[in-house]
This record gives sequence, structure tokens and C-alpha cells, in this order.
Amino acid sequence: MDVETFRRAAHAAVDEICDHYLSMRDKPVTAQVKPGFLTDALPDAAPSSGQDWSRINEDFHSLVMPGMTQWQHPKFMAYYPANVSFEGILGDMWAAALTNPGFNWICSPSVTELELKMMDWMAEAFHLDPAFKQRGGPQSKGGGLIFGSASEATLTVAIAARDRALRHLTAASGQIEPSREWAAEATGKLVMYGSTETHSVGSKAAQILGLRFRALPVTLQNRLALRGDTLAAAIKEDVSAGLVPFMVCATLGTTSTSAVDALDEIASAAIMPTKVVDADVAVHDHLDGSTNGANGNSTDCARSESLPPIWLHVDAAYAGPALCLPEIRTKYQKELSALNAKFDSISLNMHKWGLVNFDCSPLWVKDRAQLAASLTVTPEYLKTTAAANDPSVLDLRNYQISLGRRFRSLKVWFVLRSHGIEGLRQHLRDDILLAERFKRLIEDEGDPWQLVEFNFALLVIRLKPASTDADPDSRTRALWAALEKRNDELLLTQTSIPGAGFCIRIALGCPRTQERDVDDAFAVLKLAATEAKLV
Amino acid sequence: MDVETFRRAAHAAVDEICDHYLSMRDKPVTAQVKPGFLTDALPDAAPSSGQDWSRINEDFHSLVMPGMTQWQHPKFMAYYPANVSFEGILGDMWAAALTNPGFNWICSPSVTELELKMMDWMAEAFHLDPAFKQRGGPQSKGGGLIFGSASEATLTVAIAARDRALRHLTAASGQIEPSREWAAEATGKLVMYGSTETHSVGSKAAQILGLRFRALPVTLQNRLALRGDTLAAAIKEDVSAGLVPFMVCATLGTTSTSAVDALDEIASAAIMPTKVVDADVAVHDHLDGSTNGANGNSTDCARSESLPPIWLHVDAAYAGPALCLPEIRTKYQKELSALNAKFDSISLNMHKWGLVNFDCSPLWVKDRAQLAASLTVTPEYLKTTAAANDPSVLDLRNYQISLGRRFRSLKVWFVLRSHGIEGLRQHLRDDILLAERFKRLIEDEGDPWQLVEFNFALLVIRLKPASTDADPDSRTRALWAALEKRNDELLLTQTSIPGAGFCIRIALGCPRTQERDVDDAFAVLKLAATEAKLV
Repeated sequence: MDVETFRRAAHAAVDEICDHYLSMRDKPVTAQVKPGFLTDALPDAAPSSGQDWSRINEDFHSLVMPGMTQWQHPKFMAYYPANVSFEGILGDMWAAALTNPGFNWICSPSVTELELKMMDWMAEAFHLDPAFKQRGGPQSKGGGLIFGSASEATLTVAIAARDRALRHLTAASGQIEPSREWAAEATGKLVMYGSTETHSVGSKAAQILGLRFRALPVTLQNRLALRGDTLAAAIKEDVSAGLVPFMVCATLGTTSTSAVDALDEIASAAIMPTKVVDADVAVHDHLDGSTNGANGNSTDCARSESLPPIWLHVDAAYAGPALCLPEIRTKYQKELSALNAKFDSISLNMHKWGLVNFDCSPLWVKDRAQLAASLTVTPEYLKTTAAANDPSVLDLRNYQISLGRRFRSLKVWFVLRSHGIEGLRQHLRDDILLAERFKRLIEDEGDPWQLVEFNFALLVIRLKPASTDADPDSRTRALWAALEKRNDELLLTQTSIPGAGFCIRIALGCPRTQERDVDDAFAVLKLAATEAKLV
Repeated sequence: MDVETFRRAAHAAVDEICDHYLSMRDKPVTAQVKPGFLTDALPDAAPSSGQDWSRINEDFHSLVMPGMTQWQHPKFMAYYPANVSFEGILGDMWAAALTNPGFNWICSPSVTELELKMMDWMAEAFHLDPAFKQRGGPQSKGGGLIFGSASEATLTVAIAARDRALRHLTAASGQIEPSREWAAEATGKLVMYGSTETHSVGSKAAQILGLRFRALPVTLQNRLALRGDTLAAAIKEDVSAGLVPFMVCATLGTTSTSAVDALDEIASAAIMPTKVVDADVAVHDHLDGSTNGANGNSTDCARSESLPPIWLHVDAAYAGPALCLPEIRTKYQKELSALNAKFDSISLNMHKWGLVNFDCSPLWVKDRAQLAASLTVTPEYLKTTAAANDPSVLDLRNYQISLGRRFRSLKVWFVLRSHGIEGLRQHLRDDILLAERFKRLIEDEGDPWQLVEFNFALLVIRLKPASTDADPDSRTRALWAALEKRNDELLLTQTSIPGAGFCIRIALGCPRTQERDVDDAFAVLKLAATEAKLV
């Protein structure tokens, strides 16, 4: 395709994209297709000769588009939103046109510098401590970068946290270069903590690294937040058993209910009790695998002196962008103070509720050297004169798993400038108001409709079981089955939470959702319940 | 930004992108900016109120664009190419507009089905064995998916290979559920192999997973290919020392010289010598850490019976797309037969030489269940009726590290249909012809210009040292320093290779590069050498 063919095709695509958004309400929310619909429609091999764009574009609209679930539909209230903004589309158009895998500063200086600047802009907008910024002060050691997903960000943090813990254990043992056997044994004792409500980013990172993940219990009475005493008890138990706590993956806005863990209590619980002991003896004792049960608490204390500090990470994938709202910061003041004062890292997804289209997962750390210590690999062909001559030049490949990286900061810049922080606030507040409207509809309707949880712009509901129900989940499950048949009109997600069982999640957050959509959505819920003879 | 503002902005962007490509030759290849140029030009925080698009777009062109290194410039011959095609831009425009993190089939059925179909199309185009296909036959167990980078693909393979090895060791030891301590000890014994020329994807994956990576030596006499006897000797040595070989990361087209490892010899070397012994005893013996040096070979054989099969992976990041050329398949017939018959997985980057813009790294495996075994995590909110009811429905999150994923297959479909396989072949052949032209220029010029390696469309050259040179690299390093001052005209990369020392790489592959660009590039090389008084 030459430039002029592209010009025509791209102009047409722009108008088609506009039409797509203008006619969004007429589309089914969920793709109404059967498995294999596209697999069977396409030939088994690429054509030998090139085909006309008009034919390809026709197939795109007739074959591919019907199989798209419309995440931008005003009645897409499933999972969490995946915001698209037009500014974001413009950013991705340019990023594609300017393709360059900006692994080093010189690969495209703008890619590195705009990304670091946008990280600082977002840190400022979300009132993160200056310690999280690249240019947070004269001695700034912090900063971060944009990943493709929260999973990638959490895995990256887990690698850095593991290696920091191993370095600490190595130093405490008096070794310079520990043997592989010693390191493997030490790694096998590391424990990451989260709650049963922590997103799979935590347990999957541990699974990938072959580390222990302990999902601690939470209760509905505690709004499903991980509490300090639960964590403290687990740490004590694990240390007694000869294990090494190395990381907490806390959450600000869990997936099921958008619960906020008690970050203040977690920070306190994660500080090890200290006592001056001989570090070598303690760590050696620690790693020899003996549990010393008989020595009880005194052994725990002796050990804890030489245990590494626990890396505190918060996954704010969904709720993070709401930190730009003063009312949210007031509501979670204790948690945010602890986050800023005590936590090592925070990640969030601008591509959920933050108006930047997928993918955009910023991760901030207070000590960026911890990432570089784990992830730097520099063969000759990746050395650059710019990085060698100027310590301010960061080659971002050294802070991530992958080498290449997309120009993701461009869409952040476009979005933050075009909307301004006030525009982002307005978007978030609109969604919270819509969620509150939904909450009132449910509460006004009353029994058997029950609001189980409500945080940010997420509602979790169920149908209250009757005392005669053998299975307390049966009504809500029946409602869910009825709703699945109406997923062209409305898409929600199911979940299961401690203390309430099977529930239905309603996530607001699409910029196109209006009050009438909330009213219509509740009407669909009621209709499904009536049809299934549940009310 | 509303739809109509977007329409105007996007139409303008399309024309600006066209202008950008039409005026590419007038731009400096490498961004001519100093570190901090953009950091200092932008304010320290996002604006409070939204700004007009015209102002943002103006700043984009005046502030950001000068800091872009032009990877699409006809005289960008550094690293490896990062092809952009206009079809690819169209694909990314739509992917951005349709944003959906297609982690499950139902999230957008087209995203999953088109990706699996494109994997099969590419497998067919590159003549991979049907065992690598999703629909390779009635009992097909293979397939794969598209990752964001070769690093991510290699890390994913390493996780699956590690877990397969641990499952094998567990079964051989007679355990059902091994203890963490046992698993950690076993993990500490695993060894991945590559060569000193293997891309950092290999060693970095091992570093991330805390595993051993052994970079085996290669020689210029062997065209820098990893040979079977080298691998066999290393395996024997490691097994004797009580270690467990679990993966080879071989390369088809290394980064420094595009060398092709002897895949046929590697496959033979990686097959363990077998001898019927009691598996339990052997593995227990193996994992107890004793080396049993005195028992010599017989112990090795006893051990090897219970050692896991070695996972054979090939990283074909750069050269992979060239497998669609019959002449390349003929040239590397032995290697490709071994790849198809014996290897477990292969990854390549369509975003290097394959006309699909970054990012697009397909990975194929012969047994996709191996990926799912390591990477499946299914909380309640990720369960779907579609996946529960139909075994043909694959939820792609279970085959990768991240949960969310971009709609990358759309640009592959657009590119393969618009160019056809013949179009892709023509692109690759044009580049190889240009590289051969460059080769002739160097050979015709003669001393001190020296062609060190030439594979696919990559040349590696140096200035031959004089017998009086204290440092044999000094002349080529001086040439490199002179070239860096001319990086507005031509961008190349340096490297260092066994047997030849410091060299300069010249990578052809940009679709806009023409014969005159090759001639001009060599003229720049000669001018730089003359100016530096090296010729």
C-alpha cells in the first residue's frame, strides 16, 4: 500500500470510526456469535497475491466487527471499564506511524523523556509522594515507567523485591557471592502476601517466579479489606516456620468489590520486630531449615533482626485514577498517608478508568535502582554513547522485562492536556454519581434486591436468599443465567465473595453511560428476575 | 474531545502522517537533541483545565517530533529494522478505537479467533510443522499466540519449560505434591543453555526466574553458530555436577551477526543418553546434592534416565519471517528439518522484518497445554459460560503472563492480505539484494575494509588492523566514533564478536531503502574513515 492509498484508506477509517461511535447504542453490547464463527469464515492460509484494500475492509466490517464485544457501549458494565478516548486513539495512530522500540534513550529521545515526564505528571495528579517521582527533588531516586498491564508491573516489582530480599539475606549471612544452592534454598523460603481478594496479578507473579503466595482471609464485616492483625499473625507464623516474608501485594480497589486494604495497618504489621543479634547466626539458623519450635518467640525475634525489609506494593489498577479527586483522598486519608510514607511501589491502570486506551499501566517505585539491579542486561550492541556520557540518560529497557517498548506516553500526554486534571475529575465524578443512582434504585426497590458492596463506581448486588433456599446462591445464580440471555442489552460480571457468596458486579465508568442507561440497566435486571420468577 | 472534533483532528493527523512519510528523506536519521531537551521544555504538571487540540498538536510537532529517531528512514540501518506498513497503522488505529483487553474469548470473540487464525496463517507461510498449528490436524495440540516482545515470548517458554521439568522430576521421584523445599532445591539445579551470541532474551529470562543460564562459546570459524558437540559437552559436565539441563534457547539469526545455530546438532545433543534404572533412586540421588564423582559415567547414565526431556526453543526474532522464502528454506534445510521435527517452540518478531508494526511477536508451541499448565489462574469473575461449554473456546489469558492483551492480529491480517505472501517475499528479497549490493561495495573497495559476516540482510564489517596496531580494535573504534558524528545521515550499530572483536553492523530491511541509499551509506562510511585518517 503506497502513501496515497493509505491516505484514502485512513481517511475512510477515521469516518468509519466516527460512525462506529455515533451508532454505538444500536449495537449489541456482547458479540452475538458462536465459537468458530470467524475461524470457519476465513481461509486456512494467507493469500499468495496481495488483495485490494476495499475487499479487506469489507471483510473487516462484515466478518470481524460482528464478533466484537463493545467495551465502549454505554451498557457495558462488566469487569472494569476499558476507557477509550479520542485523544488516546490519536496517540496510538501516531505511535504506530512512528514505530520505534524505544529501549534506549537514543532510540527516540522523545519516547523516554515524555514517558518520564508523564510519570511525574500522573504522580502529581494522584498526589503521590515526591519520592515516587523521577524529578521529585535534588536527590530523587524514584520514578517509574509505563507497562502494558498490571500483571507485568506486579511481576516486575516481585522480581525486584525478591532480589532485594536475597541481597539482604546474602549480606546478613556474610557471603559476598552466594552459591546457587544457597540462593535457591533462600528463594524457596520467600513468601508474598495478599488477600483472597487480591487480583491474580499477585498469585500469578508468585507462580511465575516459583515463590510462595499466601492469600490471607478477609471478611465482609471488614469490607473485604486486608487488616493488619491478619497480616501480622501470618508473618509471625511464617517466620516461626523458618520462612522469609518479602513482599505484600496490597490492593486499592479489589476486582470483586473494589475493597481498599488497610494500608496503614499493613505498613505497621510489615515492620519486623527488631532485636540486636548476630545477623550471620540468625540467617544461617534461618536458612538451615530447622524450625526451632521449642525456642518460641525469642527465636523469632532473633531471626527477624536479619530478615529483609518487606517490599510493600499497592495494586491500584482500577481505583488509582480516582486519587485525583480530593474527596476520595479525604475518604482514604489514612491509607494514602501510609502509601506515601511507607510503601515501596504503586501501580495503576490508566486504561481502565483513566481515559487512556489500553494499554497503559504506570508503575512508580521509590528506588528505581532496585528495578535496574534486577533487569539490566547490556550487551555491546545496546551500549550507547549518550547513556555512557550522561547519568541523567535512562535507558528504559533496564527497568522492565522486555527490551522493546511502545510509545505509550504520547496518548497520556494527549489525554491529560486535552481533558486537563479537571476533565479527568469530571469523568470520574460523573461515573460515581451514576453508580450512586444505581445504588438508590436498588435500595428503593428493596427486598429481595440487596446491595452487598459499593465502592468508587462499582456495585455488588445479589438477590437475598429466602430462609427456605437450600443453596443461598441459587436465586442470584438463576438471575445471572437469565441475564446472560440478555447480554446483547447489558453486560455485567459475576463474582463470589466471602460472606455473601455468588454476587453480580455492576461497574460504571464508560464515558458514554448516562442516567437513562442506569435506569434501563436496572429495568433489564428486574425484567430478567421477573422472567425467571425470582421476584 | 467529541466525535466531530476527533473527526477533524484525525483527518488532519492522517495527512500529517502521509507528509511525514513523504518528507522522510529530509529528516535526520537520528534525533539531533541533547538529553533533557523535552524534560526541560514541558511543564512539571498536567494543566488543570483542558487545552485546545490545535495547541497540543502544535507542541507535538515542535517539541516531540524533533526528538524522534526515524526508524523508518531509508538510512536507518542500526539494530534490526522495525518495519512499519500502512496496513499496520490502519490495524492499530482500529485496535485503539475498538479497545478491549481480550483476555477471554467472550471479551471479543473476534480478537481470539483472528489471533489463532493468524498464528496458523503465519505457521503455514513460514513452513512450520503442522504440529505447531492450532488446527494442524484432528488431534492438534499445538498453536500459540502473539506477544508484545521476544523477551516476553522467551520468558513465557522458560516458565513452561521449567514447570514441565519440575513435573517430570516430581513424578520420577514418586512424589504427588512435592514440598516447597524440594521444588526450590530442584529449581536451583535447572540449567538453560544458549551461546555467547544468544540475545539477552535468554539470559534475562533465566535471571528473572532465578535460573542458571550457561552461555556456551562459539567461534568465527563456525560462523558463530552453537554446535552440537559444545552443547553435548556442557550437558555432560552439568549432569555430572548434579545439575538438570531443562532448556536450550537456540537462535535463528543472532543479533550481532544473524548467525544460525546448528539446530540439527543441538537436537541430537539434547537427547539424553538413556539406561533403564529405577527412576526414584536416580532422582533422589540427583537431588540430594552429592556429585558422586567417583562413580563417573555410569552414575551420569543412571541419572540421565530420570532427567526431564530438554525443552528446545528457537528465537528467530529477526530472521524468522525469511522462512517464507524457498531459497532460505533450502539453504537452512538441515536446521529447519530439526526445528520442525525436534523443537518444542519457536518465536519470531513480525515487527522487525515482517512488515507488521511494533509490537507483534508470535510464539508457537507444539503442546499448548504446557503454557496453560503454568499460566492458568481462574477466579470466579474470569469464568465464562462460553469456555465452560465448549472445549474449542480458548481464553488466551491462560497462555500468557498478562491478563489483558491488545488486538494485535488485526494488523497481521491487514498486512498478509494486502501484501500477500508474494508481497512479503518481495520485500525480504529486495532487502537481501540491497545487502548483497553493500557486500559487493565493501569487497570491491578491499583493504582495510573487511566483511566479517553476512547473513540474511545483515552485514558485519570492520577495518582490518595493521600489524603495528597495539589494539586490533582501534581503527574500527575510531571509525565508529567518526560515524557517530554523522548519525544524522546514517545510523548503524556497533557490536563485539568472538574472533573479530569490535565490529560495525549494517542492517538492511527498511522498505524505503533503495540502491542509492546503499551507495550513499557506503560513501558516508568512506568519508568518515577518510576524515578520521583511517584509510
